[in-house]
Amino acid sequence: MSTPLFHVVLFQPEIPHNTGAVGRTCVAVGAKLWLVRPLGFRITDRHLKRSGLDYWQYLDWEAVDNWRQLLDRLPDRRFWFLTKTAAVSYAQVAYRPGDVFVFGSESRGLPTSLLESHRESLLRVPISGNVRSLNLSVSVGITLYEAWRQSGWRTAGDAGKAESPV
Amino acid sequence: MSTPLFHVVLFQPEIPHNTGAVGRTCVAVGAKLWLVRPLGFRITDRHLKRSGLDYWQYLDWEAVDNWRQLLDRLPDRRFWFLTKTAAVSYAQVAYRPGDVFVFGSESRGLPTSLLESHRESLLRVPISGNVRSLNLSVSVGITLYEAWRQSGWRTAGDAGKAESPV
Repeated sequence: MSTPLFHVVLFQPEIPHNTGAVGRTCVAVGAKLWLVRPLGFRITDRHLKRSGLDYWQYLDWEAVDNWRQLLDRLPDRRFWFLTKTAAVSYAQVAYRPGDVFVFGSESRGLPTSLLESHRESLLRVPISGNVRSLNLSVSVGITLYEAWRQSGWRTAGDAGKAESPV
Repeated sequence: MSTPLFHVVLFQPEIPHNTGAVGRTCVAVGAKLWLVRPLGFRITDRHLKRSGLDYWQYLDWEAVDNWRQLLDRLPDRRFWFLTKTAAVSYAQVAYRPGDVFVFGSESRGLPTSLLESHRESLLRVPISGNVRSLNLSVSVGITLYEAWRQSGWRTAGDAGKAESPV
């Protein structure tokens, strides 16, 4: 597959149809999906395939056993961590091709240890009213499309040339 | 409830957890959700409530029997119709508070008659690669957050003052 335009990391996702919808968004944008275990479902789960419809076969994805393994696989990248407690909005950042977007699990979000060690890289999706969070796949879509919009809708094939790791 | 910042219309939605996730996004943004019947589920369906979690009670929503009834309830508004065949991207438009965003059903999209009679108001969410469309709730999130971003994250309470119907 061609060089991914962006990378999306789901940290210990729990609900298969959310991961399916995220995979579909990643195919649409030309992003690679990373799943950090343990997962709340089997990757062959029929719900995952059903939610991802017939797109999963086109998805560039990989599952890793833990955070350390993910870092080994994605060295020298700029990481962004999405969390509702961040002070900076996802729309205030100038993204670059190759950036990595990390999202926590549906019920627990990202672990405190991860947030505390990346305080300069925390982003939130603004929310008003009486909800604590958005659906996970909706949050991914909003963030990834803002990054893609900023890139001028570059396609994944172009990313290799312009990609500039930190 | 306060004046909605935007309006989201789901035309004959089929999958309850998509409508639940859209409702959650609408609460987060301060948008009103309109459902045009027939629906592929009962509004009391446990899936809808489960997907909407405990947020559905805070949602400003209404169901109408058909398109004509919707127009009667939303006179003098600027409508946008989301369809993958549109030439204009959702990100090329300058939105205004009070705008109405219309999304078709998961399997059939919007009816041709509706698209043909609103050719100047069709928008698409860009997609590359081997997917035909995004998940419905993801498309709504992307579009609505772009409109909200453009508004400077105005809250629903402010919308009444600045709202300017067409």
